[in-house]
Amino acid sequence: MSSRQTIRDIRTRVFHVPLEEPMQDARHGLQTFYELVTAEIETSDGRTGVGYTYTIGTGGHATKAMIDHDLSPMLVGHDADDIDTLYDEMQSRLHYVGRGGIASFAISAVDIALWDLRGLRQDLPLWKMAGGAGNSPLTYRGGVDLNYPLEKLVESVAGYLAQGYRAIKIKVGKPDLAEDVARLRAIRELIGPSAKLMVDGNFGYDLERATAAAQAFEPFDLTWFEEPMEPDDFEGYGRLASATFVPLAQGENLHTLQEFKHAFAHSSLGFIQPDASNCGGVTGFLRVAKLAEELGIPVCSHGMQELHISLVPAVPNAGWLEVHAFQIDRCTHRPLVVENGRAIAPDEPGTGVRFDWAMLEAYAVG
Amino acid sequence: MSSRQTIRDIRTRVFHVPLEEPMQDARHGLQTFYELVTAEIETSDGRTGVGYTYTIGTGGHATKAMIDHDLSPMLVGHDADDIDTLYDEMQSRLHYVGRGGIASFAISAVDIALWDLRGLRQDLPLWKMAGGAGNSPLTYRGGVDLNYPLEKLVESVAGYLAQGYRAIKIKVGKPDLAEDVARLRAIRELIGPSAKLMVDGNFGYDLERATAAAQAFEPFDLTWFEEPMEPDDFEGYGRLASATFVPLAQGENLHTLQEFKHAFAHSSLGFIQPDASNCGGVTGFLRVAKLAEELGIPVCSHGMQELHISLVPAVPNAGWLEVHAFQIDRCTHRPLVVENGRAIAPDEPGTGVRFDWAMLEAYAVG
Ligand SMILES: [Mg+2]
Ligand SMILES: [Mg+2]
Repeated sequence: MSSRQTIRDIRTRVFHVPLEEPMQDARHGLQTFYELVTAEIETSDGRTGVGYTYTIGTGGHATKAMIDHDLSPMLVGHDADDIDTLYDEMQSRLHYVGRGGIASFAISAVDIALWDLRGLRQDLPLWKMAGGAGNSPLTYRGGVDLNYPLEKLVESVAGYLAQGYRAIKIKVGKPDLAEDVARLRAIRELIGPSAKLMVDGNFGYDLERATAAAQAFEPFDLTWFEEPMEPDDFEGYGRLASATFVPLAQGENLHTLQEFKHAFAHSSLGFIQPDASNCGGVTGFLRVAKLAEELGIPVCSHGMQELHISLVPAVPNAGWLEVHAFQIDRCTHRPLVVENGRAIAPDEPGTGVRFDWAMLEAYAVG
Repeated sequence: MSSRQTIRDIRTRVFHVPLEEPMQDARHGLQTFYELVTAEIETSDGRTGVGYTYTIGTGGHATKAMIDHDLSPMLVGHDADDIDTLYDEMQSRLHYVGRGGIASFAISAVDIALWDLRGLRQDLPLWKMAGGAGNSPLTYRGGVDLNYPLEKLVESVAGYLAQGYRAIKIKVGKPDLAEDVARLRAIRELIGPSAKLMVDGNFGYDLERATAAAQAFEPFDLTWFEEPMEPDDFEGYGRLASATFVPLAQGENLHTLQEFKHAFAHSSLGFIQPDASNCGGVTGFLRVAKLAEELGIPVCSHGMQELHISLVPAVPNAGWLEVHAFQIDRCTHRPLVVENGRAIAPDEPGTGVRFDWAMLEAYAVG
């Protein structure tokens, strides 16, 4: 049908992109930058596909090293369009040092570049390749605001409303539960009863505290309570779910299909939130979405909104697109725009994520 | 009581150590070398502790990069003897890109160096620091022999008996189960009824085939059936255990305490086999051992016999020391010796693992 596009070279870079404002959640301390790792794959037909992943500050160099030393040598010479085969071979090659962790980040970056190449070659945008169910996801703004005093929190959320958001997520996990409750009361009052409200605990709770918190949050009509506890505590989530009617959500820290299977089996989740940057790229995201579809669970996203904008609405069980505080979209030529609570996926071929390399150059560390 | 030993510097190296003979199991293809990653930690009192990890061929450079870029900066300046604190801080710092995978390998190498330093400083051998219950573990030889024709397999096992072993593990997972059975029959005949015999499936089976295999292996009085299925299929192991009286074992591919907890909760294991090179070093190994002790499960080991020789017998629930085909001990000044089925842990201070750096230099790749 068409000639092969053989992988000829893979170039990787690491950038430390500064945040406009340092931020803090229940567990990750103060953050001043995020790490962006890019993987550019060049094929024999002269095309270049761009993939990437990001971290909250560690692991970027290890991800680059794994792509350079362990993935590139096995990929060069293969047909870039054999994505499923290459995906399974990467997982297999990294199995002993993988099944999650850095291996998932490295595979994600490569996989996203392969999908970019496929789109460029087939002249198709990602949202169509990924299923094509839609191109305009419901979108919410996730604040990283646990360290904001109440006044600043209110101001920040008011700003999101002004930007067009109709759904807001704030961090919870103050030492005193009453303070979280007061913050939620203020925010619900500000946004009104019809706007959506979510909270994110960043696994700052144990089961007992999470149960008390979820029950205390019930009056505020939350769409979900995200990551109350350690992501691997699959049974703990199940127990929590049976003690509250607030739906639970997690996924940003699940890196393998097996981990998602454990979560689906034990955690009674209301929403699943895979992140294509660390669950295996587009291929990994779509495999999770398929599992969730069979269970009737809506697929949301975590981070990298400039890519997930094309994945979340494309599947039949579309959930919510998170607009994360790591605004990778601002390092691209197409910063995200939200209108009336929705964003629109790019129609250009490939992922539609085109980095502003000149801007990034100043942040290069490897 | 005594002055602090502040971490001053961490030096890392990567070596590709050739195998004397290429080898093959059910899943990892042909291997011609293993990767050794060393981490030497220098403290303010002039001591140097040596830690390390190994891989089956990928991930070594990523492990080095993670130690260099993500762990060294946080460790330098801290007291090397605050091992538990540093361990938890490393896990926390790498949580987003971790919970297993390369993060576990990197933390393991560092943690082993910290224990070496503690032993050097306190003038204590590892087996005493690790519990001191004993210093002479029951030892078995694990062959990597799936590609050996029957005659060569018999010859190889006969060689192990001649070297003093009274317990032998062979690989299983031939496409035709009858061939595995024939090999087991020949080996049981060769070693006699009193020697111990184990098999290792390297997750080459699904549940149906594993059940058929386990039941077909029952006549050969196996001590255990190791890793029949994917290590993350915790419930699958539980179902298999209820269908056979052959005890199940796994652990070499479990990298976090949570994964071990899942295995203990669901997998009905007869033996647990942590590997200090990828489950968090000495600290990780001992935390797993403690969990296993509470459940009455014997602790065995995988790989790096030159280190596990001091850990397996030191705990009250000591199981079997594996002597792995990756003979890292041959790169040290104390190659392992087995007499009457037992090995003896070193009495010198620290881990007792002293590399022959001159020998290793020829294999350096980073
Ligand atoms: Mg979150
Ligand atoms: Mg094994």
